[in-house]
Amino acid sequence: MSTTRTIKALRAFVAERDWGQFHSPENLAKSVSIEAGELLECFQWNVDAAESNVADELADVLTYALLLADRLDLDPEQIILDKLERTGRKYPVEKARGRSTKYDQL
Amino acid sequence: MSTTRTIKALRAFVAERDWGQFHSPENLAKSVSIEAGELLECFQWNVDAAESNVADELADVLTYALLLADRLDLDPEQIILDKLERTGRKYPVEKARGRSTKYDQL
Amino acid sequence: MSTTRTIKALRAFVAERDWGQFHSPENLAKSVSIEAGELLECFQWNVDAAESNVADELADVLTYALLLADRLDLDPEQIILDKLERTGRKYPVEKARGRSTKYDQL
Amino acid sequence: MSTTRTIKALRAFVAERDWGQFHSPENLAKSVSIEAGELLECFQWNVDAAESNVADELADVLTYALLLADRLDLDPEQIILDKLERTGRKYPVEKARGRSTKYDQL
Repeated sequence: MSTTRTIKALRAFVAERDWGQFHSPENLAKSVSIEAGELLECFQWNVDAAESNVADELADVLTYALLLADRLDLDPEQIILDKLERTGRKYPVEKARGRSTKYDQL
Repeated sequence: MSTTRTIKALRAFVAERDWGQFHSPENLAKSVSIEAGELLECFQWNVDAAESNVADELADVLTYALLLADRLDLDPEQIILDKLERTGRKYPVEKARGRSTKYDQL
Repeated sequence: MSTTRTIKALRAFVAERDWGQFHSPENLAKSVSIEAGELLECFQWNVDAAESNVADELADVLTYALLLADRLDLDPEQIILDKLERTGRKYPVEKARGRSTKYDQL
Repeated sequence: MSTTRTIKALRAFVAERDWGQFHSPENLAKSVSIEAGELLECFQWNVDAAESNVADELADVLTYALLLADRLDLDPEQIILDKLERTGRKYPVEKARGRSTKYDQL
């Protein structure tokens, strides 16, 4: 399955409901944050969360994240890979291996 | 480009650094929330954000969201499409068209 | 020390810098979320966070929360106590004692 | 009204329900983030939120923030005022007046 197909499904869903008018980049960024909070709620009091709840909330985070990417004409997978390359330079394997330390303290 | 390829790149990146030990579902859910906050910061005081900053922070949200999906053996695009179907039932086109009202008040 | 004195200090700080123009309720709500993400970052990869960092980020959350309360003419302690009463009715002692279960599943 | 009295009410509420066992600093930090997301939801699609909803969600943010301060023996108002002083040095009046620019770009 490819992101392109998923994004097309999201676009059709939004267009049918004429919801594009609400999807400013700012509103979509707020929505990502709101849904990230609901995802976190699955883990509020314990580390084991019901997987179906997690899947549900994670889907909402991903949906708004993809809608924001699409709104800004960004290719979601390309920005992930571009960022990965930059992160790789900040966390070289030999220094970062097995450590969760932030790069400026490595 | 397909999610599968991106997830493979993420997996290799994490494995090289032996970071899987830090990636409990709970820690990844926290990370999604933290990065969602940084994404929102692009829009803190105004609605126009520098697009390169947004791309950068959105990439981080997507990265942790995909790592969480992968950790739980969830197909990211499948959970998006499954959720879209459920959302479609809560927001039927004829009722929801052009309105941002929550489903329980439609 | 009383909230009133703290709020007066916050008001003076904002007025001196003419920042009230940026402090719409929406922008303050975004700011609370952004700072909550930074607070959470202290606990991203482990449960023990440096206390001085936590104090710093918690102060930011509280600052924006108080500014939002003040912007809406809400008494922060009154809304806490009012909510506590409602929460008490949703979580009666005999049912909720020693359990982290959500009220609708108690 | 003083924070001390509010904190005492919160402590009694938690003790009666034996909820202190769930209130690790990490869990409280997650809870602040979760409630901040619910607060933001009041402003998801528009800038005008129903004030009673905002009061309700803001109360939850403040409650968890005060519980976290109390758990770490931090005086909430003192950390706000300490931080305000540091922020004042980063944003001197003459440079910051009427501008929402981040301090490192002032």
